[in-house]
Amino acid sequence: MPTAAIVGAGLIGQGWAIVFARAGWQVRLFDAEAERTAQARMLVVRQLHALQTHGLARDADAIAQRVHIAATLEEALAGAAYVQENCPEVVELKRERFAAFDALADPTAILASSTSSIPASRFTEHLRSRHRCLVAHPVNPPYLAPVVEICGAPWTDASTVARAREILASVGQRPVEVRAEIEGFILNRLQGALLQEAFRLVRDGIASVEDIDTTVKDGLGLRWSFMGPLETIDLNAPGGIADYCARYGGMYASIAATQAQPPDWTEDLVGQLARERRAVLPEKDLAPRRFWRDEQLMRLMRHKQPSGDTNA
Amino acid sequence: MPTAAIVGAGLIGQGWAIVFARAGWQVRLFDAEAERTAQARMLVVRQLHALQTHGLARDADAIAQRVHIAATLEEALAGAAYVQENCPEVVELKRERFAAFDALADPTAILASSTSSIPASRFTEHLRSRHRCLVAHPVNPPYLAPVVEICGAPWTDASTVARAREILASVGQRPVEVRAEIEGFILNRLQGALLQEAFRLVRDGIASVEDIDTTVKDGLGLRWSFMGPLETIDLNAPGGIADYCARYGGMYASIAATQAQPPDWTEDLVGQLARERRAVLPEKDLAPRRFWRDEQLMRLMRHKQPSGDTNA
Repeated sequence: MPTAAIVGAGLIGQGWAIVFARAGWQVRLFDAEAERTAQARMLVVRQLHALQTHGLARDADAIAQRVHIAATLEEALAGAAYVQENCPEVVELKRERFAAFDALADPTAILASSTSSIPASRFTEHLRSRHRCLVAHPVNPPYLAPVVEICGAPWTDASTVARAREILASVGQRPVEVRAEIEGFILNRLQGALLQEAFRLVRDGIASVEDIDTTVKDGLGLRWSFMGPLETIDLNAPGGIADYCARYGGMYASIAATQAQPPDWTEDLVGQLARERRAVLPEKDLAPRRFWRDEQLMRLMRHKQPSGDTNA
Repeated sequence: MPTAAIVGAGLIGQGWAIVFARAGWQVRLFDAEAERTAQARMLVVRQLHALQTHGLARDADAIAQRVHIAATLEEALAGAAYVQENCPEVVELKRERFAAFDALADPTAILASSTSSIPASRFTEHLRSRHRCLVAHPVNPPYLAPVVEICGAPWTDASTVARAREILASVGQRPVEVRAEIEGFILNRLQGALLQEAFRLVRDGIASVEDIDTTVKDGLGLRWSFMGPLETIDLNAPGGIADYCARYGGMYASIAATQAQPPDWTEDLVGQLARERRAVLPEKDLAPRRFWRDEQLMRLMRHKQPSGDTNA
C-alpha cells in the first residue's frame, strides 16, 4: 500500500490522515510541535470510531493502525507518494515547508498544500520540484465533505494535476480543478457571492437571518446537496440550461444590476447578524451545536452513499 | 376541517392541493380550462402514491379523497379559509383572478398568489380586500421543498401576513417573510448571486460546469441543506458569526471587488454551458434525469424527517 505524509497535525491534518488511512494508505503524521502528534493521533482514533458508528468506516481500529506518528520530517517523507502540508496560513511557513519537501521528499511525490488563501506560486517558485507542487484545498472535515480544490501554479505540470486528481479520487474525495490562481478558488467565491446577497438582504431589512437560512435549507440547498446549481437549472426548463437562460436570463440580469455594490460588513451590520443568531442560538450553545452539525453531516453522508458502500 | 381553494390546476396548483390535503384540509381544485382539472386530479393521486412509497404520506387514497374538483370558481371559493392562485405569470390574468376573489371569496379568507415575479401591489391595488392579499411563492414541488416566500403589498395587513405564516406552517411548509416587494424575493436573489459567479467562472475558464456542481454538491451544499449559509458561518469560527466576519471579511471583500460586474449571458457563454451539460447528460436523458431528481429529493426529505414523523 502507498504512503501519504501528512505534515501539520491540526484539525485539517487529522482529517487528511483519516481520509488516506480509511482508503487503505499508510499514513505518517508529522508536526513541528512534536507534542501535538500524540494528541492528534488520539483524536483521529476517536473520530474513526464515530465514523464507524455512522456506517462511514468499517473497522476503526484497523484503520487507526495505519496512522503512524513520524518523529522527524525526514521519517514522514521517506517513501511517501503523496505529501499534504497543513501548517498555518503564513506564506513564510509554507515556503520553509516546501523547501524542506524539495530537499527530502521522494523525487516523484506529489507535494500538496491545504491552503485556502495562498496561491502555490507564492511558495514554490524557486524550488527544483516546483512542477509537482500544487494546492489541494479541502473542506473541513475532508473525510465528510469530499470536495478538494486542486490549483497548480503556472509551472505545475499538467500531469501532476492529473495524478493528484487521480490519487484524491482513489481515496474517496471529489477533486475539482481551479484552472488559474484566483482568490477564493471556486468554493469560497461561490460562497462569498451568496453571503454578500444574504448580508445585503439583512442590511436592507428585507429578510431575517433565520428566514434566509430557512430559504436555503428548506428550498435552494435541497437540490444543491445532490446535484449542484447548474444541473439544477439544467433540469428546471423543458429544453435544458439554454432554455432556462432564455426564460429567466432577463430576471437574473435585472436582479444582478441591484447586486453590483457589495454591502460593507460594518460593525452595525455584523452586530445585527450576531444579535439575530445569538437570539436563536446563545453563545454557550455554539459548541454543542457543532457536535449536532457534525452528527447531521455524518447522517447526510451516510444517506448519500449507495447502500452497503462504506469505505474499508 | 378547513377548506383551501386552489385556483389554477397546473403543476404548482397540483402541488398545493397535495400540501393542503396531506395536512388534513379539504381542497377544492379549479381551473378556467375545465378539462384540465380531471387530469390534474389524476396526477395528484399518482404523486400521492409516490409520496406514500417514500414514507412521505401515510394514506394516499384517504388524502386523495379530500381533493375535490370544483366546476366553478364560486364553488371553489365557497367557505374556503385560504385561496391560492396559480395562473400564468401575466399581470392581467392575476388582476382578473383577484378581482373575482374580491367579489366571491369569504370575507376573511387569505388570498394568496404563487407568482415568482409579479409583486402583489400590481394586481391588488383597487380591491376592497387588498389588505388580505399577498404573494405566497412556493418552490416546485411544494410538497417536497417546503419553503414558501410570503410577500405582502404595502397595504397588506400585518395580521394577514402572520395568519398566512401560521396556516402554511400548520400544513408542513416553512414560510419565510420578504419584508418589502423586491425582485426575485429571497430565494431567486440568493440563487442569482451564486449563478452569476458560476457563470463568471465558466466564462473566464477557471472551472468546468461539472466541477462547479461538484464543489456545491460535495462541499458547500452539504451543510446548507440542513443549516443554511448563515448558521454555517456562525459555527465556522470559535466565537460565532461576528468572529467569522472579523477573520474572513477581508477575503470576502477582496473577492467581492472582482464580482461587481455580472457576466453577460451571451450566446457564446450559454452555448458553452449547454455544451458542457449535454456532454454529461444528453438531451434525450433530461426527462429520465428529472425522475431521478424527484426520487433523490423524496429520499432526502424522508431522510430529513425525524424518524416516524410522516404527515397524515
